[in-house]
Amino acid sequence: MPFAFVQHLKNKRIILASGSPRRREILSRLGLNFDIVPSKFPETLDKAKYAPSEYAIANATEKGLEVYGRLAQEDQEVDIVIAADTIVSIDDDILEKPKDAEDALRMLKRLSGRSHRVYTGVAFIYSLKEPIHPGYNIVSFTEETEVMFRECNEDDLKVYIETGEPMDKAGAYGYQAFGSFFVEKINGCYYNVVGLPIKVFIELEKLVKKQEFNSVTKDLQNNY
Amino acid sequence: MPFAFVQHLKNKRIILASGSPRRREILSRLGLNFDIVPSKFPETLDKAKYAPSEYAIANATEKGLEVYGRLAQEDQEVDIVIAADTIVSIDDDILEKPKDAEDALRMLKRLSGRSHRVYTGVAFIYSLKEPIHPGYNIVSFTEETEVMFRECNEDDLKVYIETGEPMDKAGAYGYQAFGSFFVEKINGCYYNVVGLPIKVFIELEKLVKKQEFNSVTKDLQNNY
Repeated sequence: MPFAFVQHLKNKRIILASGSPRRREILSRLGLNFDIVPSKFPETLDKAKYAPSEYAIANATEKGLEVYGRLAQEDQEVDIVIAADTIVSIDDDILEKPKDAEDALRMLKRLSGRSHRVYTGVAFIYSLKEPIHPGYNIVSFTEETEVMFRECNEDDLKVYIETGEPMDKAGAYGYQAFGSFFVEKINGCYYNVVGLPIKVFIELEKLVKKQEFNSVTKDLQNNY
Repeated sequence: MPFAFVQHLKNKRIILASGSPRRREILSRLGLNFDIVPSKFPETLDKAKYAPSEYAIANATEKGLEVYGRLAQEDQEVDIVIAADTIVSIDDDILEKPKDAEDALRMLKRLSGRSHRVYTGVAFIYSLKEPIHPGYNIVSFTEETEVMFRECNEDDLKVYIETGEPMDKAGAYGYQAFGSFFVEKINGCYYNVVGLPIKVFIELEKLVKKQEFNSVTKDLQNNY
C-alpha cells in the first residue's frame, strides 16, 4: 500500500523527462506510476551565466518544457512532467559528463582528496486545473549534497575509467557503483548524488496538497 | 579489471559471516569473490556494558569468531572471515531490529524529526602466514554515519510498517528502500547505513599490504 500522496497521483499521467535508469529506479521506489519520455533539449545553456545550482535548475526546466511542449503538440494528456539535471561543482566550476577517458582522469584527479558539491535541479511542469494561459505551471527546486573524496591512487582511477562507468556521469563517477570506492563520506541526500533527490517526493506531496493541478478528483481533494 | 587489492585477494578464501543480501551486494560490488556462511552467534551481549560503537564491534567480532571456529573445526581452509553488525543509536540507547509492528512504530516515532547515529562494527578474522597460536589475528573497526529524519506523519509510518520492510532492520527503517522517504540527509558513508561501510575495502587493502595473512603468493607480495 503506497503513501497517501502516491495514491492521490494514481490516475495522473506523470512523465519522467529522463532516460537515466538511475532516475527511473528512484522515482519508482515509492510505487508511483509514470511514463518515460527522454528530453531532446540539447543542454546548450551558457554555464558562465549561472551559479552551479541555478544552471542545474535552468537545464531541468528547459528539459521539462521541451517534453511538455512536444506532448502538447501531439495532443497527449499530461498531468506532470518531471525533469532533472545533475551537475558536480568544484571551485565554482561545473563538471558534467566527461568527453573522453582523458577528460575523466582529469576530473577525477581534481576531485581526489577534496570535497565537492553535487546539485540536482528538478522541475515539475504541471497542467493547471483552470486553463489559464499557458495552461501549465512550473515548480523548480534544487538539492545540494557535499561529497568528500579520498586521496585516489592514479592506477586505481585508470582501472576505474576502463570499466566505462565514468563516461555517462557528471563528474566522472558513480557513488552507486564502483565509484563508491573513492568516496569517503557525503553530507546530504544520497539519492541526490545518484541523480534524483528524495525531495522530489516531498515536493510532489506539496503539489498534491495544493490541489492546483489538473484532474485531482473531488473525492481525493476532500482527503486533504 | 578489478582494483589491485581485489586481484591480490583473487585466490584467497574469503567468508562473509552474514546472510544479509545488502551486505553481500556491497561486498561483491568491486569484484571480490567470497562465500557466505551466516553466523550462529546469538547476539546475547549485555548492551549496558558497551558504548554503542563498541557494542557493534563486539558483536561483529563474536560473529566472526563463531564462523572462523566452526570452519576450522570442519578443517576448511579459510583466509579471511568478514563479519559485521549494524546498530542505530539515539540518546545513547541502542536500537536493533524491532520485535513487532508496535515496536517498529515506537522506534520510528522516536527517530522522527531528529538525528541519530548508525554504527557498523566490522571484524576481520584472518589466518596468519606464520602459524603462531591461535593461528589467526583480528582486525576490527567501526564506521559512524549521522542520519537526520524528517518530521514523520504517523499515517505514513503505519503504511511503511505494513510493507514489512522495517522488521529485519536496525532502527526499523531501510534507507536503501521505502524508508528513504523519511530521511532528510545523512552525514557519513551511505553504505554504512545499509550495513557495510566502504571502509571495509580500505581496510582489506591495508591488510593485503601488511602481507601478514596466510598464503599471499611471493609474486603478489613483490607488487607492494
